[in-house]
Amino acid sequence: MTVSPFDHLFLSGLLGDAETARHFSAEAEIAAMVDFERALAEAEAGEGIVSTEAASAIVSALGSFKPDMAALKAGVARDGVVVPELVRQLRAAVDKPHDKAVHFGATSQDVIDTGLILRLKPVIEHFDRRLAALVDAFAAVEDRFGARPLMGKTRMQAAIGISVSDRVRAWREPLVRHRERLAQQKQDLLVVQFGGAAGTLEKFGEKAPAVRKALAAKLGLADAPQWHSQRDRLADFAGWLSLVSGSLGKFGQDVALMAQAGGEIALKGGGGSSAMPHKQNPVAAEVLVSLARFNATQLSGMHQALVHEQERSGSAWTLEWLILPQMAATTAASLRLAGELAGQIESIGV
Amino acid sequence: MTVSPFDHLFLSGLLGDAETARHFSAEAEIAAMVDFERALAEAEAGEGIVSTEAASAIVSALGSFKPDMAALKAGVARDGVVVPELVRQLRAAVDKPHDKAVHFGATSQDVIDTGLILRLKPVIEHFDRRLAALVDAFAAVEDRFGARPLMGKTRMQAAIGISVSDRVRAWREPLVRHRERLAQQKQDLLVVQFGGAAGTLEKFGEKAPAVRKALAAKLGLADAPQWHSQRDRLADFAGWLSLVSGSLGKFGQDVALMAQAGGEIALKGGGGSSAMPHKQNPVAAEVLVSLARFNATQLSGMHQALVHEQERSGSAWTLEWLILPQMAATTAASLRLAGELAGQIESIGV
Amino acid sequence: MTVSPFDHLFLSGLLGDAETARHFSAEAEIAAMVDFERALAEAEAGEGIVSTEAASAIVSALGSFKPDMAALKAGVARDGVVVPELVRQLRAAVDKPHDKAVHFGATSQDVIDTGLILRLKPVIEHFDRRLAALVDAFAAVEDRFGARPLMGKTRMQAAIGISVSDRVRAWREPLVRHRERLAQQKQDLLVVQFGGAAGTLEKFGEKAPAVRKALAAKLGLADAPQWHSQRDRLADFAGWLSLVSGSLGKFGQDVALMAQAGGEIALKGGGGSSAMPHKQNPVAAEVLVSLARFNATQLSGMHQALVHEQERSGSAWTLEWLILPQMAATTAASLRLAGELAGQIESIGV
Amino acid sequence: MTVSPFDHLFLSGLLGDAETARHFSAEAEIAAMVDFERALAEAEAGEGIVSTEAASAIVSALGSFKPDMAALKAGVARDGVVVPELVRQLRAAVDKPHDKAVHFGATSQDVIDTGLILRLKPVIEHFDRRLAALVDAFAAVEDRFGARPLMGKTRMQAAIGISVSDRVRAWREPLVRHRERLAQQKQDLLVVQFGGAAGTLEKFGEKAPAVRKALAAKLGLADAPQWHSQRDRLADFAGWLSLVSGSLGKFGQDVALMAQAGGEIALKGGGGSSAMPHKQNPVAAEVLVSLARFNATQLSGMHQALVHEQERSGSAWTLEWLILPQMAATTAASLRLAGELAGQIESIGV
Repeated sequence: MTVSPFDHLFLSGLLGDAETARHFSAEAEIAAMVDFERALAEAEAGEGIVSTEAASAIVSALGSFKPDMAALKAGVARDGVVVPELVRQLRAAVDKPHDKAVHFGATSQDVIDTGLILRLKPVIEHFDRRLAALVDAFAAVEDRFGARPLMGKTRMQAAIGISVSDRVRAWREPLVRHRERLAQQKQDLLVVQFGGAAGTLEKFGEKAPAVRKALAAKLGLADAPQWHSQRDRLADFAGWLSLVSGSLGKFGQDVALMAQAGGEIALKGGGGSSAMPHKQNPVAAEVLVSLARFNATQLSGMHQALVHEQERSGSAWTLEWLILPQMAATTAASLRLAGELAGQIESIGV
Repeated sequence: MTVSPFDHLFLSGLLGDAETARHFSAEAEIAAMVDFERALAEAEAGEGIVSTEAASAIVSALGSFKPDMAALKAGVARDGVVVPELVRQLRAAVDKPHDKAVHFGATSQDVIDTGLILRLKPVIEHFDRRLAALVDAFAAVEDRFGARPLMGKTRMQAAIGISVSDRVRAWREPLVRHRERLAQQKQDLLVVQFGGAAGTLEKFGEKAPAVRKALAAKLGLADAPQWHSQRDRLADFAGWLSLVSGSLGKFGQDVALMAQAGGEIALKGGGGSSAMPHKQNPVAAEVLVSLARFNATQLSGMHQALVHEQERSGSAWTLEWLILPQMAATTAASLRLAGELAGQIESIGV
Repeated sequence: MTVSPFDHLFLSGLLGDAETARHFSAEAEIAAMVDFERALAEAEAGEGIVSTEAASAIVSALGSFKPDMAALKAGVARDGVVVPELVRQLRAAVDKPHDKAVHFGATSQDVIDTGLILRLKPVIEHFDRRLAALVDAFAAVEDRFGARPLMGKTRMQAAIGISVSDRVRAWREPLVRHRERLAQQKQDLLVVQFGGAAGTLEKFGEKAPAVRKALAAKLGLADAPQWHSQRDRLADFAGWLSLVSGSLGKFGQDVALMAQAGGEIALKGGGGSSAMPHKQNPVAAEVLVSLARFNATQLSGMHQALVHEQERSGSAWTLEWLILPQMAATTAASLRLAGELAGQIESIGV
Repeated sequence: MTVSPFDHLFLSGLLGDAETARHFSAEAEIAAMVDFERALAEAEAGEGIVSTEAASAIVSALGSFKPDMAALKAGVARDGVVVPELVRQLRAAVDKPHDKAVHFGATSQDVIDTGLILRLKPVIEHFDRRLAALVDAFAAVEDRFGARPLMGKTRMQAAIGISVSDRVRAWREPLVRHRERLAQQKQDLLVVQFGGAAGTLEKFGEKAPAVRKALAAKLGLADAPQWHSQRDRLADFAGWLSLVSGSLGKFGQDVALMAQAGGEIALKGGGGSSAMPHKQNPVAAEVLVSLARFNATQLSGMHQALVHEQERSGSAWTLEWLILPQMAATTAASLRLAGELAGQIESIGV
């Protein structure tokens, strides 16, 4: 047991997902924040807020920026947020007098929240592809074995006969709905966050909407009024992450029960035991249940963070940092393991 | 402190909402289940599954059905679910030989889940009206006081000046999104549940889809394949309930902090103290925070219930019964209290 | 589904526990609060804070006090707490000039928190008796069937042979530890709460400790400094409640799995199905799992309430009201159902 | 935002605790597991289960064991647990024929659970020292400023005057109780786990208790019957972790509110803002609230894991791995930040 199984030296073999993890590395976060600052300089130059020369100098200098991680760590310890020290480093990388134009009119939350959204975008696409593949995989299982009989079980007891299709449909149908939910949610989620010190973009006057719109466009995000203290988008997305891992937990639970019953399912592979070499444990099935329960647990904290006092709550915001990345990592692992488990099904039904 | 503050002899004055509570009474639940059985008889007669005479006898007899609550209670203790005993009582109320046609081809979950959805329908409408009224109330506050200055506060410290509008927008805008989310969600939520013993509607053969469709239509719900073990609709709705109470918790927290700061807000009313008669406590504001944190807590349990094993999980299903009604009651209380609190604002800003 | 299954017209047959529920009725709460006010008058008279005549008048008048529940409900709606209106009614019941001596130097939290502890005392005794009986019941199962073989299952797969004793011990041993934990916890939990307006007992000067000590003694509680904003005792007790229901959830889960496997356990009784009259559902076993997961969910909220700001947090305190009684009701139902289920075991092992 | 803030390249500056983190590294976990296997060989040799030569060979060879982490990662992916591959590597490091004596009679859970307890031991000592230092730090604050007046606040409103001592006591007293709780809990927590394949130590016959006792003694732990599927010790300890972070969250919340009020507290240091260089944010105070809410959230999952089916639940056990280390890291960060914050108090009271 170590602090984070998701990016752990050996537990990540079971619980990690490399494609997702890379978007949540410190390096990826810095890169996204630097992208924000470069796009901001350009957007501000476009509206005459900073000079074209300043924007060019910034875009160019930040293109090869290398952070001093130790200083960033000390900065977070002091400021509670990485941005003041990061901006100091970024400014030091830009020739004078253009250094002052870096981060002009923005605040920590603009950089961090937008930086998060920029990274959620590819994560969401990855999840949607995984879901689509899983829907196909279940359809393939159904094509192959769907007509076979299976004993339906209600309240942990044999009920009446059903077909394999009946059970597999209960695994597949929610995923189709999750894809639809995601298509709706991402319209609202993949938006820029830009508000300045207290959400009013007070440095920009009448040009504020135009700067924000340009910033969003350069970053490939939709435009939206600042949402510093309105965290419903992230809490709703967290709910989606847990709906997915929860539905896959049901799949895992069913497979584990079928494997225990014996004769209902045959799986390729399966884990070994240090004490009983003959055993074949339905590891992926069990872990899908763990991940479902883990995300269900975490979701509560993301909703606690909706109580975000005044213009910016340090405590509610930090709580999100502690939870949301883990929830995404959990759903990523669930999707990966469910795909593997679906592929392990050699036979189902009797 | 008593078991349920929502329908408690005196705490419900603070924490209850009469309009919502009546849909979650035992009587309302019985009534919804009886509606299901009547509509089922008609839908089945329409497809020739039961005779027209049987359907007429059932519709007529159940129109004046009075449950024996003590026997229902004993039935639940025995069966874990009220339906077997309820059906026994319903059949006893219908003249022979038509009694056997009651509940034909249905199972407990069809009756209870559809009965729940039937009651959620007016609850949702009530919530949407409350949300709309609240959006208007915040707009009215903004119209009246929006231009006044207010000190913006970030990380619990004075930041820069903002306007009252800026803060009120953070209360109003999420509610607008919640209304949009609800409009989407209810398409998928307000659907019939009908699957029979193990989800296959095995008693109806090829007529199953037609019976289900007719049943849905008679009940004013959309048609959908059975979702016995697919609980994502309810978990997603629970998330919506908590998004609403969470956003209103932020409103409450802000008002409580403004009331503490002094000079930023003036409220009509406010609660008394048994020790300090001079005090005016911002009771509604505080309780909005309690309700937000309560629903955030509960939501976790609704997502645990997504791990719904096999064709029907008694344990996951019972877990929903323990949680979802409370979450609805909480959101109802939040909406009521937020409306009252918005109406208490006599002045805001400086 | 209704708001509270624990005291519901028919669901309480399954999920309620009459012996526990009566301590959480509105009437029991009022009675405990009246007991507090009577003991307070006596304790204050003993130290010369109020006159002996006043104390006698109060003790006598409150002995036959009947609350006006409708007015209490309106009072809670206004004040966020029942005490101001309750004290008004109590004073009205006491002849002048002694009415002013009622509640002298106390505050709402003193009355409500001590009133809760007074009711938890018999609840804890009831739970301890139930646990002791359950330990005995498991021992009896072990005596009768312990030597029989059973297939040990690890990671949802047959492992190696064990005995019935081995499995039953895993049900019994945690309960023994829970009894030890309770014996320790109750030393710290069953204490008076008495602090006055802001915790300083400012009305009593040097006599404050003596009044508090006398009050505690009259109520049969231990003495302790005021804990208005220190809620660790209640959060820790909530943890104990969930440890008990969690351990019993493991028992329930095991029985449900054994019932599903077939041949490993035979149970008397078992629930009926509305669709399949032949089925015998392991209702109590399943519901033990529901209750375990419910309390695990709630516990989170009790720990959120530890963040109790300043001298008294209305929001954190109200959050406790919403949760703790339910947790006690859940553990009560778990203990009752586990006792019934243990008694239903007709045979176990092969 | 990255997956784990606790051991993150820069966020760990704020949210990490180096002293605790090192006990949760992959390296520390391997080391603890190797310690288990060495002690086991010795204990078994002492009872004549393996030869003295085998034990010597094992103790010697494992003294310089270097794991192949990549192979361990692949092993976890396959087996769901690191032990089968770790034992393979350990055996490969021991000369034949003694390799077979490695891990004799033990199972994965013995190694991992005992390995966890071995690491919790110094963590607990570290926490207790931190608590003791914090109790002293609060006493010092009280000595220096305790007599100063402060406005007591109840329900977010000024109540009556109190002293600084009154408020500081509410921060200090729970910590004293937490130390007492820890002293009790650790008697029961710091025990060996040793049960073999399914908990029966079936390889050892009558010598089983003696081997287990010797193993415990060599590891510096107390002896106890196997607790494979009885997870109450860990859930109870998780509760303790959250009680501590919750009490410190109350301290943080109070300081943040005092800092907002202005004039009630003066703090050295405080965090900077990227948009407002003049601001001094009470970063540690806010983060204490985040950490309290995070642990309160996690605790729910540890109690879900009490429902640990049969002789070993892969899913409940994996759920613990996902949660418990984070909870310890959270409490560690809380204790560190609370100590820093207490030391930053330059003045308190008016």
